[in-house]
Amino acid sequence: MARFLNKTTKQQGLPPGTLIFSGEQKMEQPLIRVMDFNLDKCSEREVDNVEEIAEYEDTATITWVNIDGVHEVDIVEKAGQFFKLSALLLEDVVNTGQRPKIIEYEDFTFIVLKMLRFDEKSGKIIAEQLSLVISKKFLLTFQEQRGDVFEPIRERIRSGRKRIRSFGPDFLAYCLLDVVCENYIHIIEVLGEQIEDLEEELLDDPKKELPHQINRFKQEINYLRKCIRPVREVIARIPKTENATIKKHSFEYWRDLQELAVHANEAIDSYRDVLADHLNLYHTTMSTKMNDIMKVLTIFAAIFIPLTFIAGIYGTNFEVLPELHYRYSYFIMLGFMALVAVGMLIYFRKQKWF
Amino acid sequence: MARFLNKTTKQQGLPPGTLIFSGEQKMEQPLIRVMDFNLDKCSEREVDNVEEIAEYEDTATITWVNIDGVHEVDIVEKAGQFFKLSALLLEDVVNTGQRPKIIEYEDFTFIVLKMLRFDEKSGKIIAEQLSLVISKKFLLTFQEQRGDVFEPIRERIRSGRKRIRSFGPDFLAYCLLDVVCENYIHIIEVLGEQIEDLEEELLDDPKKELPHQINRFKQEINYLRKCIRPVREVIARIPKTENATIKKHSFEYWRDLQELAVHANEAIDSYRDVLADHLNLYHTTMSTKMNDIMKVLTIFAAIFIPLTFIAGIYGTNFEVLPELHYRYSYFIMLGFMALVAVGMLIYFRKQKWF
Amino acid sequence: MARFLNKTTKQQGLPPGTLIFSGEQKMEQPLIRVMDFNLDKCSEREVDNVEEIAEYEDTATITWVNIDGVHEVDIVEKAGQFFKLSALLLEDVVNTGQRPKIIEYEDFTFIVLKMLRFDEKSGKIIAEQLSLVISKKFLLTFQEQRGDVFEPIRERIRSGRKRIRSFGPDFLAYCLLDVVCENYIHIIEVLGEQIEDLEEELLDDPKKELPHQINRFKQEINYLRKCIRPVREVIARIPKTENATIKKHSFEYWRDLQELAVHANEAIDSYRDVLADHLNLYHTTMSTKMNDIMKVLTIFAAIFIPLTFIAGIYGTNFEVLPELHYRYSYFIMLGFMALVAVGMLIYFRKQKWF
Amino acid sequence: MARFLNKTTKQQGLPPGTLIFSGEQKMEQPLIRVMDFNLDKCSEREVDNVEEIAEYEDTATITWVNIDGVHEVDIVEKAGQFFKLSALLLEDVVNTGQRPKIIEYEDFTFIVLKMLRFDEKSGKIIAEQLSLVISKKFLLTFQEQRGDVFEPIRERIRSGRKRIRSFGPDFLAYCLLDVVCENYIHIIEVLGEQIEDLEEELLDDPKKELPHQINRFKQEINYLRKCIRPVREVIARIPKTENATIKKHSFEYWRDLQELAVHANEAIDSYRDVLADHLNLYHTTMSTKMNDIMKVLTIFAAIFIPLTFIAGIYGTNFEVLPELHYRYSYFIMLGFMALVAVGMLIYFRKQKWF
Amino acid sequence: MARFLNKTTKQQGLPPGTLIFSGEQKMEQPLIRVMDFNLDKCSEREVDNVEEIAEYEDTATITWVNIDGVHEVDIVEKAGQFFKLSALLLEDVVNTGQRPKIIEYEDFTFIVLKMLRFDEKSGKIIAEQLSLVISKKFLLTFQEQRGDVFEPIRERIRSGRKRIRSFGPDFLAYCLLDVVCENYIHIIEVLGEQIEDLEEELLDDPKKELPHQINRFKQEINYLRKCIRPVREVIARIPKTENATIKKHSFEYWRDLQELAVHANEAIDSYRDVLADHLNLYHTTMSTKMNDIMKVLTIFAAIFIPLTFIAGIYGTNFEVLPELHYRYSYFIMLGFMALVAVGMLIYFRKQKWF
Repeated sequence: MARFLNKTTKQQGLPPGTLIFSGEQKMEQPLIRVMDFNLDKCSEREVDNVEEIAEYEDTATITWVNIDGVHEVDIVEKAGQFFKLSALLLEDVVNTGQRPKIIEYEDFTFIVLKMLRFDEKSGKIIAEQLSLVISKKFLLTFQEQRGDVFEPIRERIRSGRKRIRSFGPDFLAYCLLDVVCENYIHIIEVLGEQIEDLEEELLDDPKKELPHQINRFKQEINYLRKCIRPVREVIARIPKTENATIKKHSFEYWRDLQELAVHANEAIDSYRDVLADHLNLYHTTMSTKMNDIMKVLTIFAAIFIPLTFIAGIYGTNFEVLPELHYRYSYFIMLGFMALVAVGMLIYFRKQKWF
Repeated sequence: MARFLNKTTKQQGLPPGTLIFSGEQKMEQPLIRVMDFNLDKCSEREVDNVEEIAEYEDTATITWVNIDGVHEVDIVEKAGQFFKLSALLLEDVVNTGQRPKIIEYEDFTFIVLKMLRFDEKSGKIIAEQLSLVISKKFLLTFQEQRGDVFEPIRERIRSGRKRIRSFGPDFLAYCLLDVVCENYIHIIEVLGEQIEDLEEELLDDPKKELPHQINRFKQEINYLRKCIRPVREVIARIPKTENATIKKHSFEYWRDLQELAVHANEAIDSYRDVLADHLNLYHTTMSTKMNDIMKVLTIFAAIFIPLTFIAGIYGTNFEVLPELHYRYSYFIMLGFMALVAVGMLIYFRKQKWF
Repeated sequence: MARFLNKTTKQQGLPPGTLIFSGEQKMEQPLIRVMDFNLDKCSEREVDNVEEIAEYEDTATITWVNIDGVHEVDIVEKAGQFFKLSALLLEDVVNTGQRPKIIEYEDFTFIVLKMLRFDEKSGKIIAEQLSLVISKKFLLTFQEQRGDVFEPIRERIRSGRKRIRSFGPDFLAYCLLDVVCENYIHIIEVLGEQIEDLEEELLDDPKKELPHQINRFKQEINYLRKCIRPVREVIARIPKTENATIKKHSFEYWRDLQELAVHANEAIDSYRDVLADHLNLYHTTMSTKMNDIMKVLTIFAAIFIPLTFIAGIYGTNFEVLPELHYRYSYFIMLGFMALVAVGMLIYFRKQKWF
Repeated sequence: MARFLNKTTKQQGLPPGTLIFSGEQKMEQPLIRVMDFNLDKCSEREVDNVEEIAEYEDTATITWVNIDGVHEVDIVEKAGQFFKLSALLLEDVVNTGQRPKIIEYEDFTFIVLKMLRFDEKSGKIIAEQLSLVISKKFLLTFQEQRGDVFEPIRERIRSGRKRIRSFGPDFLAYCLLDVVCENYIHIIEVLGEQIEDLEEELLDDPKKELPHQINRFKQEINYLRKCIRPVREVIARIPKTENATIKKHSFEYWRDLQELAVHANEAIDSYRDVLADHLNLYHTTMSTKMNDIMKVLTIFAAIFIPLTFIAGIYGTNFEVLPELHYRYSYFIMLGFMALVAVGMLIYFRKQKWF
Repeated sequence: MARFLNKTTKQQGLPPGTLIFSGEQKMEQPLIRVMDFNLDKCSEREVDNVEEIAEYEDTATITWVNIDGVHEVDIVEKAGQFFKLSALLLEDVVNTGQRPKIIEYEDFTFIVLKMLRFDEKSGKIIAEQLSLVISKKFLLTFQEQRGDVFEPIRERIRSGRKRIRSFGPDFLAYCLLDVVCENYIHIIEVLGEQIEDLEEELLDDPKKELPHQINRFKQEINYLRKCIRPVREVIARIPKTENATIKKHSFEYWRDLQELAVHANEAIDSYRDVLADHLNLYHTTMSTKMNDIMKVLTIFAAIFIPLTFIAGIYGTNFEVLPELHYRYSYFIMLGFMALVAVGMLIYFRKQKWF
């Protein structure tokens, strides 16, 4: 599959807003979890049907509905009808190759971005699309699969932290996005350490595989960049939305989050530069090594080729070859050869060739 | 023909608005198809003459007039007179090397862009200029040849989809542009997969032709970029037009379409980077391979050249060459040679040369 | 002469507005041509003295005064006095190394740019500075030499085309600039074809001169870029002028012209990229070829060097060299040599060295 | 540790504003120093507890509270309560990996940046985070460790300079930032001289370690860039704050400071360019040297290989080899060899190979 | 000294506005020259003391005070007191490493930039800081040393040119800056010609020193760029100042001057590109030459190595070596060798290796 594009399994020319799941199905049974809380109380349950959450509608509590598994378009569609979401929005939810974006509607703010996790076991980055619908009283989140990075947030809600219990769905959304961005930073950190470790290898004994390894890191970094870069603008636009879903008092938090995203982007750019430098250094090291080898060849060849030639002359079988018959010829030849060799060594040394 | 410019067959200095077809004629007989529909009914016919569509003028229906073949300037001119289009606009229609653009007139919006299709049979990209004139009641489209990607749209009209039947020419235009952009994505996807497939070849056994192949992909990508990049701005400007042809309620759709165009552009840029990386990797691989070969030469030469020299010395025919007459001379020489060879091998090994 | 700067023959520190012709004189006798026309009539004459055009001043006709040859500063100065042009403007006219620019005055708009022509005979680009002064009733143009690309425009005026006869000096200026820009496109096209033709040579049999040739094309393209890039902004600013010389009804034309300039600039940038790719491809091709040659050397040397060494051993004249006396020694040696050679060939083949 | 990111020791998902020190603890016991002064008097003391500074609160004096050591979060927290600072601000203070930034609050302006010092002894750059809270009457500064570059400022306060004693906390903050920026310039200067010194080494006798050295300089420069680049915008935004903490009369000073930051950034960019040029020059020098060596090999080999071949022919033991028996054969052979050698030397010379 | 930074001899942490000369003292005794003129009269004198110019204060004349030598801070300070200049401004005057800038004060406009002169004798560029203080009636200029490029301006004043005598200090300042910018152009021209001359050398016979030479030109160009680039913005901001020192009627002149600065910057950028191309071309040329040399080696070696091997075989001393005894063996061997050699030459030729 082309890496920088999501496979458009959607048949071309379908009416806009047609819900067809595009992506890889990552879990079996979708799961709907509801947390309903205010300063005083907090209830938590799993429901089978979106309609069941109607009971929370007219209360003064904050309700967080989290749906794991967007491949079951029926559930997404029902949620859409329940929350009166537009068809295009739902299409974005089920089409898991979205570019991070924010769309402001009259009654809610829609945010979609990539949630990245580093799986310590496999050493791989797990990417998953996270969609948030922030309304005045509800927060609706869609994930592709069960298992997420939000457990600490749930714990904070359960343990009755004042701010998260009372500040509304926008603050809850901020908390989720904060964890998502912290994971970005964490992943860049892990990759970054691996990249910086390459430098020692470069200085010691660069292997042939290094360029391929560097290239693979580059692709990882480019993938991260593709996921994270647009997030900066998305977050920057959150406090500028004009509907009433994002409250003024949380502006300081959003600005802080934006700083985090800027930080992540700068780190990514720095590592791109480092990788380019690594590759350059690899080439320099390899060519220096090659030059060393070539110098040895040159010196050996340049010294022995003329000597061998001299020996060759006295190996000829001419009847008349006067030198052959002098007594000290052989020793004179050896001496001359030594002289030539030493002379050339001195010359090469003077030229700083070795 | 220069690839990045359309041949200006138009004679220089002609008055602006002179209609002269510039491009390659791609079909024989132009074809005018009319679809007239509203929520209740839908009629479809081919007409020989643009004037025949006058009958649809005063009805409350939406009329889509599609003209295949712009090389017949007469027909274009008649259509222009009928719809009261300006001469410069018509010149843009028949000059098939236009940069994608949007021009806002008082009564209609004019959009011109490239329609790209991937021909599965030949594996080639087919490019064709598509011009749209959106008025309040008509949608007029010009194509260069018969056969297009709009059949699913026609099917949706025929099958009586509510939105497309009732939302007006601007929504119809959106649907057409949506299909065009989906085709952009599809083509980038196909090219992208081919480009990513090169990587394996790079790792396995890069052939000499690879750089030329990469170059050809680069030209394809550059051509795509030239076609698609301006489309983003064109689409971004559609909802900002101030005449009444683009209705407010469709703004969400246009924004969605713009996301698609941004997505396409980002993917193109990513693949440009990937191609550059591929070329670098190719060079690295080739130079690594060359270095390996050179090392073998060096080691062989550096070892055997001195040995051959020694043999050469004892091949000389000096009358007085004492070593020749000792009994074990030959074996001592062989032993010494083995020593030299092994010593050098150890030295080279220590230098990590092989 | 420095190519990217015009020789400032002007003595430094002179008062601003001092008229001193700077450049190369390209013709002998300046020529003043006047076309005076409205919808009904059109007269055309050559005058010796700018003052003679005073007679056209109070008529309701459009008057185009074209002066070939700006090296005769007297004439320029007189024209300046007649039309009440500022001293700095006149300095720009006679100093033929101006950057393209537009200056808006109260009563007229001043535009200066490079007029490029491709001389089919010599295959060279001829550059010449064109200055336009657009007032409400006059169009005053200065060229460096006789012969221009405006003949078709004159023909259109003579043949009584309605628009050009009635739309005013700004439309006439637009027509002239349109021809100038069409010539830009034409030149880029010619250069572009030559550049694209290089690719075949690159694939077939790249010659040593190719890099120099590519460099020369690059300089040409850079020169074009220097001339044409600012023109885009100049044209973009024309319809934004606030004096009354540019009429509103012609805005569509200027926008069309701007598209042409944008097009030219994009084509130039594309060809710069193509040239860079060509140079890369040349280097790749050359190094691939060199590698092929080096491989042959390596294989020959690596195979024959050890064999020659073996022969050398048996060429020694040791008294005691037992192998020499066995009957099949020679044949065994030949066989062993063949074995070594074949073994090495197989090894090299396995390594995919040839 | 990844160099371009600060280790987020903070556990993910903690509530925003949780104070956990992240960084390396650089001193043992935090130190709180208070300077309280106006035009007439100046008192200076160390306090153990932030609350003790309450006595300065209602006086008309300017109070500078400097806290060395932010790893003791208790003290930071208390200071935060005393000055009524927001939790997020305090989090920024203790998290020592902040990007330089400025945040405007209602009653104070918060600035955080890196303070760099060049340690003359170790030749190393010491980086430390400096946070400033500017209110109308207080200036609160946090540093990571004891020892700073502010002693001259303290001396100016003690010695009763008029401006610093009377202009308020914003002018004091300006003085501190001025010293910080002057240190930036100083460090760039020191690095810059070292970088420029490399050039001579490049011309004389470039060593193999040079690329690694250049790479290390590049990393230093990149680190400086990361620290200093955002400072420019931070300083530019100071005079644009709208709360009353930055007084109008000091605008000229801030602009001057901004010039300094711009200057530092330009110098950094220049040195990045210089390093890139150095690396290029190193490669050029090395390849020129290698070429020289290869030429010697080529000339030796090309001359002696054919000569050795000739000698080889007459070293064969054919029974019938007529030349061997002519009297002058040997001398003719020697003469012929000399001819070949000289001929080749002349040819190579003509080709300008040596 | 670090080239891209001025040595901050100023002790760090000094109060802002402390006047300490930083730079290299370039003359001995400062010189104060006063020109006082209006349309009718013009007086010119040297004064020892700034206070002496008080007499010109209340007259209606234009007074130009030029101070050569800013290392004598006393004089600068006195001038500052006399003209009521701010301390920071004076600091900028004596600190000769300023980035070009413009600062607008209530009663005067302050401009500082680099004045570059090409010393024809030494072939070196002489740089000097020029500070201008433009008030309504005075123009105050500071230079680092005696000798400047303003003599033609003085001559124009003396000779009674109308505009310069009557237009005020802003016009006088424009005249000075015009000369300064013309000198920029002149220097770029001289450098540019030298750079373009390198091309011929590149084509003919590139020497080893060329890359170093190119590097030196690059540094010169970078230095020019650093000096000239900010001047463009400085000049662009002059007519936008809001105090009354820059009169409206001179706007056309400033715009003309800005064009000159833009021109200079574009030329600098062009030459940077040319230098990069030169370096590339040098590398291409060198590697082409090296390839040629290597080819000769390869062809010689590949041909003679097998031949020598054959000769070696028949040089062995085996007792049983049948070929040695056939009558035509020797000639057959020679023939075979010729065949091999010719065969290989044909093969190499076919491969287009020479």
